[in-house]
Amino acid sequence: MDKAPFDSYLREISDLIGSRLSRLIPEGWDVPDNLVQSMSYSLMAGGKRLRPLLVIAAAESLGASREAAVPVACAVEMVHTYSLIHDDLPAMDNDDYRRGKPTNHKVFGEAMAILAGDGLLTHAFHFAVEAARYGVPAEAVLAIVEELSRYGGPAGMVGGQAADMEGEQGLTDAAHLQYIHEHKTGDLIVFSVKAGGRVGAGDPVQLQALETYGRAIGLAFQIQDDILDLTGDETKLGKKTQSDVKQGKVTYPYFHGLEQSREEVARLTRVAKEAVTGGSIPDPLRLVQIADYLLQRDH
Amino acid sequence: MDKAPFDSYLREISDLIGSRLSRLIPEGWDVPDNLVQSMSYSLMAGGKRLRPLLVIAAAESLGASREAAVPVACAVEMVHTYSLIHDDLPAMDNDDYRRGKPTNHKVFGEAMAILAGDGLLTHAFHFAVEAARYGVPAEAVLAIVEELSRYGGPAGMVGGQAADMEGEQGLTDAAHLQYIHEHKTGDLIVFSVKAGGRVGAGDPVQLQALETYGRAIGLAFQIQDDILDLTGDETKLGKKTQSDVKQGKVTYPYFHGLEQSREEVARLTRVAKEAVTGGSIPDPLRLVQIADYLLQRDH
Repeated sequence: MDKAPFDSYLREISDLIGSRLSRLIPEGWDVPDNLVQSMSYSLMAGGKRLRPLLVIAAAESLGASREAAVPVACAVEMVHTYSLIHDDLPAMDNDDYRRGKPTNHKVFGEAMAILAGDGLLTHAFHFAVEAARYGVPAEAVLAIVEELSRYGGPAGMVGGQAADMEGEQGLTDAAHLQYIHEHKTGDLIVFSVKAGGRVGAGDPVQLQALETYGRAIGLAFQIQDDILDLTGDETKLGKKTQSDVKQGKVTYPYFHGLEQSREEVARLTRVAKEAVTGGSIPDPLRLVQIADYLLQRDH
Repeated sequence: MDKAPFDSYLREISDLIGSRLSRLIPEGWDVPDNLVQSMSYSLMAGGKRLRPLLVIAAAESLGASREAAVPVACAVEMVHTYSLIHDDLPAMDNDDYRRGKPTNHKVFGEAMAILAGDGLLTHAFHFAVEAARYGVPAEAVLAIVEELSRYGGPAGMVGGQAADMEGEQGLTDAAHLQYIHEHKTGDLIVFSVKAGGRVGAGDPVQLQALETYGRAIGLAFQIQDDILDLTGDETKLGKKTQSDVKQGKVTYPYFHGLEQSREEVARLTRVAKEAVTGGSIPDPLRLVQIADYLLQRDH
């Protein structure tokens, strides 16, 4: 089967997700205007849509329809977006800008930003359940819901964020940093790939291959973020560089140096690609392209 | 069938829920200590456990086992608790005490309080899914998950809270107050009763009766809260009275007077009891007792 070039594929999926997310609230639901505006503001602020991309690419790598993967893809983007809104709050990272735009609380105030985050997190589960309408069996949808809770919750992303807060108090060592990377960023990426596998009715071997892939690119992604924070172009990043250093956050390059960090990103990318090209995944092309794309990104 | 006195029943369920919630994190999950402590602090701060009580009473009214209702009962208590933690934050109601104890952010700091709320909300869905292990069919569990998201989310509790924030800016009229009451407090109570009904494999007529019951006691509960805020005993309430007045919040007694407010609570209690004693609910005794108990409470 012929495939569109990777950049068209990226654009196609980003447009699809943007379009679905712009219809955030089902018809007939009565939601205060300012809450919808606050949730939509951050949701439509133009991120990379990496997590939705992974859900869809993983589902399609097993032959599932794109349509069936879209609700879960939106759910994970909503969870990611809520985490950014809460992370940016004055009590947390106290960031005024995100992707070059004022952060949610700078526009809507702190109270509404907290509620927009709470609303997005809660509403994400509505989207996750929607997968059942596209032929995904109820048991598979329940597994997706349980994993969205686990990888997004206290033992996942929220735990990583809590550990990161401790890190700012100077308690960090390399093992602690590993915990933060695995959970704060990695877990939701692993969830995305695995959930796509569940939409595609993956068997245990396939789900394991996808999890290995997700774990590797998740860690690579975070180390690359740390590298870009040190060396990146502020215009492309949409935020100031060296903010980690200024906030006293320890990062992978802090412990292991820039050179070794770059090698680790390259190694993890190889691990990821090998996991999905070993034979269990029928059509791994997009997953391979995504791994290469993440390795080369400059923002 | 002989039944234990109502106060033993209350204590029994409260102990059961407390015991299950004290094992919040599954074995083998790696969660930062301070996050677990912060979540547990508010979860074990000794609330009335009204919502778990409603889940269990509704499930048992249809003949379901108590065991099958416990996970969902815990889930709704976690969602309720997260909402209290976030409501108390300085950017929201800025409360220093809750149930006579320092609020979460006074003990753990604002960042951890935000994360404890996020963690409880996310982890609640883990508990909800657990119902499937007790024989509740996957489709019924999915309906519970979807409704926890809907009644707890932007069109439910979070929406009510957002509308309440607007109210503090002096925009409130009686219709706006109705929206706040229905969603901020009412929706999670309706969810509890309905979810219990789903655990008990309720048919549409039974679910409708339970929803009518839940809607009526939810509104009665909130009006009673407003009355107690005006007239209650600070020691019993565990917080200062007239805080609504001081914060410029409009309440049911503000619009309709104390006398009419008390009559409305009594009327709603009758509506609730009639809904479940009309014949569709096999064993409505506990639901009737709960309605009476809420009418008479002084805290």
